[in-house]
Amino acid sequence: MNIQFTVTGLKTGIIVPGDDITEILLKSLRDTGLTLQDGDVMVIAENAVATAEGALVTLSENTPSPKALQYADTYGMNPHLAEAVIQESDTVIGGIPGFLLCMKNGTLLPNAGIDGSNAPEGTVVCLPRDPNKSAESIRDRIHEMTGCTPIIIIADSRTHAMRLGCSGVAIGCAGTQAVVDEVGKEDLFGRELEVTKKAVADNLASAAELVMGEAGESVPAAIIQGLSLPMEEISGIPDIAAEECLFMGAALNANPAMFK
Amino acid sequence: MNIQFTVTGLKTGIIVPGDDITEILLKSLRDTGLTLQDGDVMVIAENAVATAEGALVTLSENTPSPKALQYADTYGMNPHLAEAVIQESDTVIGGIPGFLLCMKNGTLLPNAGIDGSNAPEGTVVCLPRDPNKSAESIRDRIHEMTGCTPIIIIADSRTHAMRLGCSGVAIGCAGTQAVVDEVGKEDLFGRELEVTKKAVADNLASAAELVMGEAGESVPAAIIQGLSLPMEEISGIPDIAAEECLFMGAALNANPAMFK
Repeated sequence: MNIQFTVTGLKTGIIVPGDDITEILLKSLRDTGLTLQDGDVMVIAENAVATAEGALVTLSENTPSPKALQYADTYGMNPHLAEAVIQESDTVIGGIPGFLLCMKNGTLLPNAGIDGSNAPEGTVVCLPRDPNKSAESIRDRIHEMTGCTPIIIIADSRTHAMRLGCSGVAIGCAGTQAVVDEVGKEDLFGRELEVTKKAVADNLASAAELVMGEAGESVPAAIIQGLSLPMEEISGIPDIAAEECLFMGAALNANPAMFK
Repeated sequence: MNIQFTVTGLKTGIIVPGDDITEILLKSLRDTGLTLQDGDVMVIAENAVATAEGALVTLSENTPSPKALQYADTYGMNPHLAEAVIQESDTVIGGIPGFLLCMKNGTLLPNAGIDGSNAPEGTVVCLPRDPNKSAESIRDRIHEMTGCTPIIIIADSRTHAMRLGCSGVAIGCAGTQAVVDEVGKEDLFGRELEVTKKAVADNLASAAELVMGEAGESVPAAIIQGLSLPMEEISGIPDIAAEECLFMGAALNANPAMFK
């Protein structure tokens, strides 16, 4: 792996449903004067991808279920938002004021990834339907349009257990291993490493977040150049079983009913 | 904030107790040919800082308490390691095989941050005693030696709830706000952002981790240039109350006895 890389934000206009996000990002890339190379990493905000794909929900159109009304009451939420979160999530595990903690596609996340910021009035943006497929399709189209094969990361901004503030997390990945297992690698003293799995895609998402903006900056993507990550014809982000996760495993040991 | 930055790994030899880490990193920086500027971010692995500060524990020297023997039995751990973890942590919340989930200095972390990799045989490396103070003191010494004032991040590599693999997390910060509150900032449609806190220090730690090595690469630090983060005479990483944390708050609501 190289020891130096560059991260450059890609400015765009406001993305709206039906936009061709690949074309928009390639235009922005040309405007920065950068030349795309094989293996460059393009990190794109999930919000922009979801919006372009039309994953918007008009809150007033759903009818809150009894469960949604109960969550809305307990956690001080808009009942229509609670209903949308229930519909978008696989399981609701619990909540704190304003947010439900959900499982969706093997990941734990607030409000099932539904975001009210950067969505037109009265609507919310859901996560892209299939972020890995979105990543693959953007990679393939970039290859068609430029001849280069980039690595694509679809990124979200999330809080972590007992940490204040949001940092970048990958929810879709195409073109490289999202998690690299360094099993067999040795430490400084020649013994096998104890902890071997590196969440490379999450680190890429976090690096990009330093130049991307959730506020009205309109920097929904970044290009990371110089890392020389291994390029592979794969997509996806491996998940972890709740029992193997330190946080949920410990919570499960304390309260086995939590996921029931 | 600038829209482009560069991350460069800093190679060193093996760090040993008593080493002057500031001098070692400045030498490495000179060797890369880079020139330090005010506001450059130096991210340093906590393991390297702790080792230089002598925060090593020889496992055979402690006597496992009954509690340690019980944890060792339940989670298949070396009883001496379990004892060291108990001594290093504020509270042990639970565990999974091989790891205890601990609270220490307001953060949730595995084995109280004790690391067996990259420690001499028979010893483990604890976290630096006071990572914010370490960050401050390295910043001040760099200022003395070069006339430049960098931002210093002490970084660890950690797993997150329901995520496979480790990513970079800041455990010490000096010279800028670790968490930036964008309250009052507007989204693309001119409304106030819903989620406003950015864990900038965590994003910096993650970006650096892409070139730093836990394996025997001897790249214990990285320099991030070009970001133009606001320089401030502060240090520290704000924490979050368990009830306000989505993950622990939801777990607490499900099982209030968890932190007792």
